[in-house]
Amino acid sequence: MRKILIIGIGAGNPDYLTVQAIDALNHADVFFIPDKGTEKAALRQLRTEICERFIKNTTYRTVPFKIPRRAEAGEDYRSSVDEWHAKLEASYGRLFTEELAEGECGAFLVWGDPSLYDSTLRILEAMQRKGFAFEYEVIPGISAVQALAAQHRIALNRIGEPVLITTGRKLAEGIPDGVGDVVVMLDGAQTFRQVASADLDIYWGAYLGSGDEILVSGKLSDVMDEIERIRSKAREEHGWIMDTYLLRKSGQ
Amino acid sequence: MRKILIIGIGAGNPDYLTVQAIDALNHADVFFIPDKGTEKAALRQLRTEICERFIKNTTYRTVPFKIPRRAEAGEDYRSSVDEWHAKLEASYGRLFTEELAEGECGAFLVWGDPSLYDSTLRILEAMQRKGFAFEYEVIPGISAVQALAAQHRIALNRIGEPVLITTGRKLAEGIPDGVGDVVVMLDGAQTFRQVASADLDIYWGAYLGSGDEILVSGKLSDVMDEIERIRSKAREEHGWIMDTYLLRKSGQ
Repeated sequence: MRKILIIGIGAGNPDYLTVQAIDALNHADVFFIPDKGTEKAALRQLRTEICERFIKNTTYRTVPFKIPRRAEAGEDYRSSVDEWHAKLEASYGRLFTEELAEGECGAFLVWGDPSLYDSTLRILEAMQRKGFAFEYEVIPGISAVQALAAQHRIALNRIGEPVLITTGRKLAEGIPDGVGDVVVMLDGAQTFRQVASADLDIYWGAYLGSGDEILVSGKLSDVMDEIERIRSKAREEHGWIMDTYLLRKSGQ
Repeated sequence: MRKILIIGIGAGNPDYLTVQAIDALNHADVFFIPDKGTEKAALRQLRTEICERFIKNTTYRTVPFKIPRRAEAGEDYRSSVDEWHAKLEASYGRLFTEELAEGECGAFLVWGDPSLYDSTLRILEAMQRKGFAFEYEVIPGISAVQALAAQHRIALNRIGEPVLITTGRKLAEGIPDGVGDVVVMLDGAQTFRQVASADLDIYWGAYLGSGDEILVSGKLSDVMDEIERIRSKAREEHGWIMDTYLLRKSGQ
């Protein structure tokens, strides 16, 4: 039986690797490396650094594969994702069949934690449901959400209160009633501006965990222009940006 | 300047320790060990195992301290917590002054991740705000939420959708509109029964990450009696239980 490891390698800092993830890295025969246009040179270098630092044997193979382009979604976000997933399932199927001998172990390295806004688990589950035979195991990793909280030295929740983890797209629809704390990921459009009328604090971070990390916090209406300016400048300098933030009702 | 490290040691599995946490363990001169009635022998043993396995020097000291009892809250949960925090601030103040020489480094070991439903960061922040002089640093750890997702091999969010992390107490007030996925922590009362009329799936786990781990998943109305039976039996056998679960709208 082929075995697949989905290894969370944490967000930005190689020291976020867990003992379990390091063991898993050392068990894999083959690493499947996605070639996303979106994965920038800095991330590729960090991944290489992680492999070189933590993998003791040097007999492992790496197999790059193309991530299919996602169709422009328009309003139909879900069906565009579904189509994209079907292409990925076919692509993974070829990888497992052609690149992995019976009894070998393949691995995907996932930034952050495979359980948050990552497609790998969903695709493997769909493949198994359709009868593709393999085992798989999931190794959790430190997510950007946790890096954000640790670096700002804050709890994500207030005392006894819930915290919502959501996307920029969903934040644009408003903050649900009864929710005072919202972590926003995947926001390329600075959606925090759209909720700035509310009485909110923001804890913002970019390139979290890495040497390029930037942190800004304060009352949202006071600091949002500063964040936008810093974000735009950093994006220009680096050629890319990944950022995450917590919105918290003020004065609590 | 005294330095305090708040080290997330992950949920249940010593292999969840990160490289950063192991480095931090090896930097601390003193470990402050809470004596909660609630921390059971199994957890004490796991913490001892982590220290013995990962700390190379053997010159560190451990200082146990009593966690004050929390007053019975009745309806006023917040003020009972506030009073309890004030006692903890005084207790931490004594620890730092009496047990930590100038320039020494003290550490708290926090189960899971210090940013989720843990009081330590809030207490240290309040102490600093009141003028107590020390530095502190936060090291994130793999939370029970992530262990739950990894062991069930599921993503916490559905595609592009938010996920709410909340408590049993809050779940009893209902699931907010627009939220399809809810992770529930700190639920000693099997509050999932109260929402069982909704069309939900449950992914439940107890003693997550540990050798005693138990996982159950299925349609909530089908498996809730089984979970309650298993939970009650395990609690009797072990003398304690910690469990966490994800509720997900069915058929999505």
